[in-house]
Amino acid sequence: MWEFYMPTDVFFGENILEKRGNIIDILGKRALVVTGKSSSKKNGSLDDLKKLLDETGISYEIFDEVEENPSFDNVMKAVERYRNDSFDFVVGLGGGSPMDFAKAVAVLLKEKDLSIEDLYDREKVRHWLPVVEIPTTAGTGSEVTPYSILTDPEGNKRGCTLMFPVYAFLDPRYTYSMSDELTLSTGVDALSHAVEGYLSRKSTPPSDALAIEAMKIIYRNLPKAIEGNREARKKMFVASCLAGMVIAQTGTTLAHALGYPLTTEKGIKHGRATGMVLPFVMEVMKEEIPEKVNTVNHIFGGSLLKFLKEFGLYEKVEVSSEELEKWVEKGSRAKHLKNTPGTFTPEKIRDIYREALGV
Amino acid sequence: MWEFYMPTDVFFGENILEKRGNIIDILGKRALVVTGKSSSKKNGSLDDLKKLLDETGISYEIFDEVEENPSFDNVMKAVERYRNDSFDFVVGLGGGSPMDFAKAVAVLLKEKDLSIEDLYDREKVRHWLPVVEIPTTAGTGSEVTPYSILTDPEGNKRGCTLMFPVYAFLDPRYTYSMSDELTLSTGVDALSHAVEGYLSRKSTPPSDALAIEAMKIIYRNLPKAIEGNREARKKMFVASCLAGMVIAQTGTTLAHALGYPLTTEKGIKHGRATGMVLPFVMEVMKEEIPEKVNTVNHIFGGSLLKFLKEFGLYEKVEVSSEELEKWVEKGSRAKHLKNTPGTFTPEKIRDIYREALGV
Ligand SMILES: [Fe+2]
Ligand SMILES: [Fe+2]
Repeated sequence: MWEFYMPTDVFFGENILEKRGNIIDILGKRALVVTGKSSSKKNGSLDDLKKLLDETGISYEIFDEVEENPSFDNVMKAVERYRNDSFDFVVGLGGGSPMDFAKAVAVLLKEKDLSIEDLYDREKVRHWLPVVEIPTTAGTGSEVTPYSILTDPEGNKRGCTLMFPVYAFLDPRYTYSMSDELTLSTGVDALSHAVEGYLSRKSTPPSDALAIEAMKIIYRNLPKAIEGNREARKKMFVASCLAGMVIAQTGTTLAHALGYPLTTEKGIKHGRATGMVLPFVMEVMKEEIPEKVNTVNHIFGGSLLKFLKEFGLYEKVEVSSEELEKWVEKGSRAKHLKNTPGTFTPEKIRDIYREALGV
Repeated sequence: MWEFYMPTDVFFGENILEKRGNIIDILGKRALVVTGKSSSKKNGSLDDLKKLLDETGISYEIFDEVEENPSFDNVMKAVERYRNDSFDFVVGLGGGSPMDFAKAVAVLLKEKDLSIEDLYDREKVRHWLPVVEIPTTAGTGSEVTPYSILTDPEGNKRGCTLMFPVYAFLDPRYTYSMSDELTLSTGVDALSHAVEGYLSRKSTPPSDALAIEAMKIIYRNLPKAIEGNREARKKMFVASCLAGMVIAQTGTTLAHALGYPLTTEKGIKHGRATGMVLPFVMEVMKEEIPEKVNTVNHIFGGSLLKFLKEFGLYEKVEVSSEELEKWVEKGSRAKHLKNTPGTFTPEKIRDIYREALGV
């Protein structure tokens, strides 16, 4: 049995806001824009959006204080500031952080009695403001998923399933100014989404079709994209969107779960963190789905590990044995295990971390 | 620039109506079911649907007089019969004919001032009853497209773009009782959708990903499906759905347009008719997109024409030179030309018909 559901209307191309953005006027007359402190100002996307909003007669407020890996507090700051305003829709502009942030705010500004913890209870999340997403990095795919990943007060990254964006506008020009490091870390995030979605127990025929195409595009284009090649960056932006459509169907796997503490506790970027553990998670998956794991390695030139190593992903990370044991324990009860093929004992999870981190 | 929009929530699996069908209760309390005279009774799908409607407390009327390649008159018969009833949604049950029929009726029962000709004016088609589609053949893909193809009083097949179905339920069991001939003709229709969508000027990265997977599934499974192999028929049902998602993005090409008169005037089934002309249309497309045409031939074992010949698709058709000239003239002004790569002069269209029909 499978389901395919991906209702977001996706528009892709250079100057896409200018060409097709006016479709948003159907959503109403007042918007809240959420974005980070600086990149949407530097890459021109905020100016493009303001121009669109002005031209379509939509009034707006801009919350430009979205943090990387946004915390509950960060979300509540926006919610409290705008609680008494009356928005018709929310626009998330930037990388995964503002896009995920937009989804959370869209619920909490509509359902004013809900707490942020209620976002994790699907029975309670019934209504929301429509969300428009404008990604400016080629990685997260959040523009075509219903997911929002926030960091709770204990420092844990926790994902909830909220709503699909109504519209996603992808202008590859915004990715041309990304640093090489950001291109790498977001690109490896997209790679992980395609690979994990393909290997997930929840994979489906349409999601596999999209995942295979995304993996092929990433294999051919990630190296050139990191070097700044624009055509390759454009292709990576396509691939990250396809990979987002994949995880919208399948969710992610244990590789994402094991990567989270590397981000929250060691400051390793989300994509890098996931990519570091992914090939070792795949080794355990082989028990259950050897052919699919082989297909992935084949697409990546014979070995995904070898492909990733060439980007210098495997720097040694200092980890105490207490930290390691805490992560092993956390990984052993991750909800991602349900959809991850293979049997992941604490011993195997410890081995995965040891191999990935060189400890 | 590209867009991807495919908002239908698709459910696939044996006994899917029993397992997931109750989601339709969100649509309301009264349904109009449109279906053909007999096959939905024979394959068990109508009984499954009635059981679902009864169990969810939805009252319904059944219009079981949908013709193959439904005419304007056929649609209006249903509209007039139920004009004074008050339905919450429409269910199309069967092959492409009832599914396309359901979309037309869903508009005309909602917008009671519209004529059937108004369906071809996108400005006028603004509101409709929600549509649920339950395909029982593996071909048309209508369950995931906004298209409706009806036959006008002059005997022309004419497609209009109405709405995406809200839900599609695909139970492969219904395809197990199809005749070998129906499996062939509908299977070649799905094949044409995947190939034409891939080769269309409107093809996009996500539609190409889905098209490539659909073509691969069809190449591996169509021969066995025709022989009655159930696993192969299930795979063909997956492929026809993926191919539907493709043409939902791209539309079809001149191959579909050139096939239409073979159906309306010579009674050749839609899929067969399209398949007969498709390889010769592809030869002309080569001028503009040689690599993509080669990819298609490669997927089909080296030559799509050879693959199709093995199914006995190329029986000689008696055609007068007046008929031929009329079809050439019609093909020369088909709206499909806009999205079909290559230059199709009347001479080339005449040659395509001659080669396809052996005249
Ligand atoms: Fe991720
Ligand atoms: Fe067709």
